[in-house]
Amino acid sequence: MFRKNMEIKRLFSNKVVSRDEALTKIQPGMTLLSGGFGICGNPNYLIKGISERPEIKDLTVVSNNAGLDHYGLGILLKNKQIKRCIASYVGENKEFEKQYMEGELELEITPQGTLAEKIKSGGKGIPAFWTPTGANTLIESGGFPIKFKKGTKEAEILSPKKESREFKGKRYIQEETIFGDVAIVKAWRADKRGNLQYRMSARNFNEDMASAAHCVIAEVEEIVENGTIDPMDVHTPGVFVNYVVKSDNEPKPIEKLVLDDGQGLKITGKDATVRIKIAKRVAKELTDGMYVNLGIGIPTLVPHFLPKNVHIELHSENGIMGVDGYPRPGQEDPDLINAGKESVTVGPGASYFSSSDSFGIVRGGHLACTILGAMQISSTADIANWIIPGKLLKGMGGAMDLVACGSKVIVAMEHTAKGSHKILEQCNLPLTGKGCVSLVVTEMAVFDFSKNGRITLKEIAEGLTLEDVRKATSANFEVADKIGTF
Amino acid sequence: MFRKNMEIKRLFSNKVVSRDEALTKIQPGMTLLSGGFGICGNPNYLIKGISERPEIKDLTVVSNNAGLDHYGLGILLKNKQIKRCIASYVGENKEFEKQYMEGELELEITPQGTLAEKIKSGGKGIPAFWTPTGANTLIESGGFPIKFKKGTKEAEILSPKKESREFKGKRYIQEETIFGDVAIVKAWRADKRGNLQYRMSARNFNEDMASAAHCVIAEVEEIVENGTIDPMDVHTPGVFVNYVVKSDNEPKPIEKLVLDDGQGLKITGKDATVRIKIAKRVAKELTDGMYVNLGIGIPTLVPHFLPKNVHIELHSENGIMGVDGYPRPGQEDPDLINAGKESVTVGPGASYFSSSDSFGIVRGGHLACTILGAMQISSTADIANWIIPGKLLKGMGGAMDLVACGSKVIVAMEHTAKGSHKILEQCNLPLTGKGCVSLVVTEMAVFDFSKNGRITLKEIAEGLTLEDVRKATSANFEVADKIGTF
Repeated sequence: MFRKNMEIKRLFSNKVVSRDEALTKIQPGMTLLSGGFGICGNPNYLIKGISERPEIKDLTVVSNNAGLDHYGLGILLKNKQIKRCIASYVGENKEFEKQYMEGELELEITPQGTLAEKIKSGGKGIPAFWTPTGANTLIESGGFPIKFKKGTKEAEILSPKKESREFKGKRYIQEETIFGDVAIVKAWRADKRGNLQYRMSARNFNEDMASAAHCVIAEVEEIVENGTIDPMDVHTPGVFVNYVVKSDNEPKPIEKLVLDDGQGLKITGKDATVRIKIAKRVAKELTDGMYVNLGIGIPTLVPHFLPKNVHIELHSENGIMGVDGYPRPGQEDPDLINAGKESVTVGPGASYFSSSDSFGIVRGGHLACTILGAMQISSTADIANWIIPGKLLKGMGGAMDLVACGSKVIVAMEHTAKGSHKILEQCNLPLTGKGCVSLVVTEMAVFDFSKNGRITLKEIAEGLTLEDVRKATSANFEVADKIGTF
Repeated sequence: MFRKNMEIKRLFSNKVVSRDEALTKIQPGMTLLSGGFGICGNPNYLIKGISERPEIKDLTVVSNNAGLDHYGLGILLKNKQIKRCIASYVGENKEFEKQYMEGELELEITPQGTLAEKIKSGGKGIPAFWTPTGANTLIESGGFPIKFKKGTKEAEILSPKKESREFKGKRYIQEETIFGDVAIVKAWRADKRGNLQYRMSARNFNEDMASAAHCVIAEVEEIVENGTIDPMDVHTPGVFVNYVVKSDNEPKPIEKLVLDDGQGLKITGKDATVRIKIAKRVAKELTDGMYVNLGIGIPTLVPHFLPKNVHIELHSENGIMGVDGYPRPGQEDPDLINAGKESVTVGPGASYFSSSDSFGIVRGGHLACTILGAMQISSTADIANWIIPGKLLKGMGGAMDLVACGSKVIVAMEHTAKGSHKILEQCNLPLTGKGCVSLVVTEMAVFDFSKNGRITLKEIAEGLTLEDVRKATSANFEVADKIGTF
């Protein structure tokens, strides 16, 4: 049976145990789910405990990220306790890169929304589902190097091809779900029956993972009596949880502390003019009341250039709707970060949710618009922005989900990369998504794809000519009947 | 694209509108999702509004139940505004039966957990998923009469066969998801951005449906300022919601008011002895700390016969963990009912959740045990308990999910039905599940299926002989080496 190794969930009257007792459940070779996004909401007290038990090795770790070099899962990497990592983004960790490139560590790179849904659905007894994310990319075709032969650049294990199918004229791929041996999650507080509440954006993957393992161990900051948590406000019902461990005043660092000094936006650097020009033009695409997801880089500048009467609501993939500005000094909270791992605040009427629900919002097309950067754009609305083979792979994070969502996809990017063309007839980098871009805004031009999905020049930057744009663009673009300027 | 008709979600600063304005979004022929379980958590103010607009007809209504004859969706049925109903249980409604049998109404009967997941996944942009629920039943094989030819007992439309596949040796069927034109949901309160909170078990299907339609209209009891609801306690983020309508002091009746008079359990009727005998024996199967789902009938008696040191935690499919006794007079709350639609209470450490999460608990195998009744049991652990073709169909409700869950499935039933055998070599009624029963307890005997999935007699009731059991049993059962008594 699908669940035959499940430890019967019981002890509902008091699930509180010591860390030592809980960790006896983790054996070498197990599949271990570990909550958190970046270093926000990590079960770090439990991870430290595992690192002190070197006999727990050969782990397959499922986690959105791989920790920092000296923090979180990074410690287990350094100890060589991890055999394989299933993650969406591993860009913050040099040890990871080293072990992976040297063939010591296996990596199943997985789009973030797919990863969250694989976990959530796995916990629900669903063995597989269909998703648009990753269709027509390396995720579908397979061939991503999971493991290199030691000392070579040759792949020893390649990711398999996935099954694809059309539903209502759109292409989807089948993803099998994940059910771990053990999940370690970090919650804010628990009652003795194991009911959990998460704080702010520290909820992220924890809620999903807490439902998807034979044995679930929750590390919490506070344990309260049964009945203290209103049954309506329980995030993870105790039925999912086997053990509750109180953490030992574990510090909660902020990966990227960004503060608002009250002096307003400062955009510096030699490309500041270019970035502002792009952000200003993109801002014109937004209308009042839109729900928007912003990628890292130029997209984050866009809200600063909205007309006074246009207010948008910002979604952050790690589980926030209603992101506001950076905190004033002293207001920062390690449980509240954005997708770029920066400290942020939220406005009135905000909400927090799990990673699977966050990508439900994305994949379900509930956002009006998503704005992101790109390395390459093709003449048929393809986008590539997640990997340069042979160079460091950071992972796609949520990008493949964001472009597959069916909402308007606006690419905000510099027209060329130090002179080399980015708008091509065909992308030569592996795709993030195929035929999914709605609009491209650069400092030179605006292109849209509404005409048969083919690239069409719509606007040229003031002072430039059609010839200038042609010279900087490899794609054979059509030209709109009436070209505007910006 | 999958979402091309989606009305852009906006107006985030104030989504509050009049009922009249909201109802202009509902057009004839649309697919309408309507929240609630029984008559708990129904958007009745909106339904009444639809009933006053007879031009809104030919609706395909997705709802777990079909209301009562004069309440909820029953009013729309009476008005003949509904063309097709997608539901799991329609047993409370005579008008429904009449229209369906006369070929005026179409019915897609759908297991409750599958229905909830079709909605939740649909809202997440997932077109289809695999589930064990309904595999090897009429749900998989197809042929259920969706519509009868008018004035005949001949089917005009039959349900289609579903695709099946094995994952890790277990059989699953593929279910396509649901995304409605409009969803009407009932929430407790909303802020102006449309963030919703549900009260107690009135959450049920509302949370799932609020994420799964082009246009979502929430009927609420109270509207609060943005910022009043803690972002951590939001059940449905406002991004999903288009319009909020304040209901007009809509009454909230209780379908089955059951009160605790403080006099303890009374079991009456001529079969009381039999029912008590069965419940007492089943109680011995339960050990301290188990999470258990109880079906209607004999199973609900089981907790009364547990030893003093055995405490179990009761799950109710409509979205509760930690169900307690019936309320004392005056303590009853229309937002708190069990799966049998009776008023109940919860104990300290309880939790409420959505229907899809409730069946995630079931399907994911997180319950230790499920106890339910049956019409027929086969020698190979099949169970039939949801339909007698030709007679009234009530629907399977959550039964198909409960038996497919991979937890221990205990059947508690009378040995025969007025003398006719219920334990057969093969079931001749349509199956609820195949090969899924762990144990059968009757007033005469206990059978288990642990030996190759074949029926084995384990215990005989005191005072009866093996011959007595054989006479009352059509299945060729094996006999355990050592037979106990009870």
